[in-house]
Amino acid sequence: MSPLSATEIPAEPSTFTPATLPTPALVIDGAVVRRNIETLAAYCRAHGLALRPHTKTHKSRFVGGLQLEAGAVGLTVAKVGEAEALATAGERDGVDLLMAYPAVDPPRTTRLARLAGTVPVRVGLDTAIAAQGLSAAACAAGTTIGVLVDLDVGFGRTGVASPAAAADLAAVVDRLPGLRLDGLMVYPGQVKMPPAAQPPVLATIAGLVAAAVERFDRAGLCRSIVSGGSTPTAHQSHLLPQLTEIRPGTSVYNDMNIVHGGFGALADCAARVVCTVVSDAVSGQVVLDAGSKTLTSDRCGPAPDSGHGHVVEYPEAVITVLTEEHGQVDVSRCPRRPRVGERVTVIPNHICPCVNLQDVVWWHEDGTLVPRPVDARGRLS
Amino acid sequence: MSPLSATEIPAEPSTFTPATLPTPALVIDGAVVRRNIETLAAYCRAHGLALRPHTKTHKSRFVGGLQLEAGAVGLTVAKVGEAEALATAGERDGVDLLMAYPAVDPPRTTRLARLAGTVPVRVGLDTAIAAQGLSAAACAAGTTIGVLVDLDVGFGRTGVASPAAAADLAAVVDRLPGLRLDGLMVYPGQVKMPPAAQPPVLATIAGLVAAAVERFDRAGLCRSIVSGGSTPTAHQSHLLPQLTEIRPGTSVYNDMNIVHGGFGALADCAARVVCTVVSDAVSGQVVLDAGSKTLTSDRCGPAPDSGHGHVVEYPEAVITVLTEEHGQVDVSRCPRRPRVGERVTVIPNHICPCVNLQDVVWWHEDGTLVPRPVDARGRLS
Repeated sequence: MSPLSATEIPAEPSTFTPATLPTPALVIDGAVVRRNIETLAAYCRAHGLALRPHTKTHKSRFVGGLQLEAGAVGLTVAKVGEAEALATAGERDGVDLLMAYPAVDPPRTTRLARLAGTVPVRVGLDTAIAAQGLSAAACAAGTTIGVLVDLDVGFGRTGVASPAAAADLAAVVDRLPGLRLDGLMVYPGQVKMPPAAQPPVLATIAGLVAAAVERFDRAGLCRSIVSGGSTPTAHQSHLLPQLTEIRPGTSVYNDMNIVHGGFGALADCAARVVCTVVSDAVSGQVVLDAGSKTLTSDRCGPAPDSGHGHVVEYPEAVITVLTEEHGQVDVSRCPRRPRVGERVTVIPNHICPCVNLQDVVWWHEDGTLVPRPVDARGRLS
Repeated sequence: MSPLSATEIPAEPSTFTPATLPTPALVIDGAVVRRNIETLAAYCRAHGLALRPHTKTHKSRFVGGLQLEAGAVGLTVAKVGEAEALATAGERDGVDLLMAYPAVDPPRTTRLARLAGTVPVRVGLDTAIAAQGLSAAACAAGTTIGVLVDLDVGFGRTGVASPAAAADLAAVVDRLPGLRLDGLMVYPGQVKMPPAAQPPVLATIAGLVAAAVERFDRAGLCRSIVSGGSTPTAHQSHLLPQLTEIRPGTSVYNDMNIVHGGFGALADCAARVVCTVVSDAVSGQVVLDAGSKTLTSDRCGPAPDSGHGHVVEYPEAVITVLTEEHGQVDVSRCPRRPRVGERVTVIPNHICPCVNLQDVVWWHEDGTLVPRPVDARGRLS
């Protein structure tokens, strides 16, 4: 008896309830997802921003479809395998895609150039080598790929170092066959606190984006898209007036990073892991059947000492240690302690890699549980 | 164009080479795996110990088959889904299985009891509740499940607290229908250093095991199996004379935890992630296309400041930060720096959860690359 594989799963209500599902199981509250999607869409409408959610969080053609229905202009991905999986999200013929990740290697550029023959594809990149490789692949495939130049605004992960360097790379892209310069992208990943707590950071970012836009304009370079990102900065996007669109990912589900960062409440956390208590043999501790192979080892960024997720029914409990399949929970401060065999619900620290460990999520809405595939799970290349 | 899914993959040599594989890709050196398996098997033969490797590391029916060919008496798993996948490892009719994990919940006990109708199944457990649930499921299925009582020897994760408590629980198991008391298991997970560095720990563990065995014998309780575990303690097992078998997992592939712990060399690390450099835009840094969704966020236990894995071609490089799909590498101390588009090889800190992120591993042996499914990947329940 094998567990269902993603491809075998019918999208029909199951006979399971949260009390009878084999655990650990990632259960998604459909109503909360719809509300999270609408909250972000309403913000973007109010501020005249286009929305292109990052699908790294859900990796789901179904959820991508909900985001497009709510007005998203397209979807964002990190890898080509994700682009291939999300190109038909929501059963649409062709979804407008941004790969916010430098496509460098021939296996990647070749597939991407082929995909650009069926759906609009843009790529964010930060080196001339990446642009040249993409150009060669697009020419070989006879397709055109849009490019956003990635400008580092202080996170220090990818992105050219200055507005001048962004304009220089844009000029290179503008001359390469098979590519179409569309503008600029930034990722303010260093912003992990609300604006009141980090005002100088946001002002610095705004200044860099404005300077880059000015350089593009002076050189006559296209910047019809200026793309911002990240869930923590999503509702501050109007403070960067040059942005034309944003691409938050996590806000569709939310997690303890978002809650402890001050960007959402527990009630906004749509994705929760139902676990079973499998041992209480060690004093003051219970063990859950969810370890790092379920929850990941990611600590909570804004609250690194808060443990490995939040136990909803036992808020005084602390998940102190994760090994691969064991979650050790300190219950010494709980007025009532969970019993062996009892089920508890954990909100993960970081939902994105957690979803990526699941073949399916269990979509809980209107009293039914529907298994939905995580279509782009494991699409690493 | 979807990437291959595990079920679609033919176990035939591919036309890829490590230089043309889509990256990131987990490549396994088959010759090193065979040597690692034989090293452990030879130790067990020399000391009269049975060997039942933990399959959590490879989750592969093929690799499990190699371990059985080398003389393993059976295989160890953590979850029922893994048991189901490994029950026919190496194309055998029925593999003798130990689930070194308390089966508590009805979805788990029911499946396990059914599996016990086709292959020998044992379970390690530490509560009467777990024993009673397992007994009920075995009775309902008309099968018999062997039980090892889990004794905590200082790791503090699972296991009853004392040799006396172990004998008490064994007596409970012994009276329950559908169960067959087979003995005792321990997991000395706290031993992370070679014996010279931690002599008192090993003496304490030996004393606890001896005391439990004495209690079992005095009460006339069966202890035909006394199972030890873990790769770090594997070659110290003869120092615990009561052990009849051991169940190390990681030693089949090894990783930087093993190297920095002093239990193996880089040359013993069979599993390595081939990555592509996708950006060098930030000064002193390159970015690999492998982040936490490929390497996991697990730090190196014995060397927590060593970064997120070892870059083979650039030993001075440090993988300082992992986000989901980006590995940021400080190359400021490298005499020569990797170029954008270049491939490098990373030995992960912790190979077990890393394998669990892959649909396939690329088996590299005799000049060929064969994609092999990670059969039990994602079998969380």
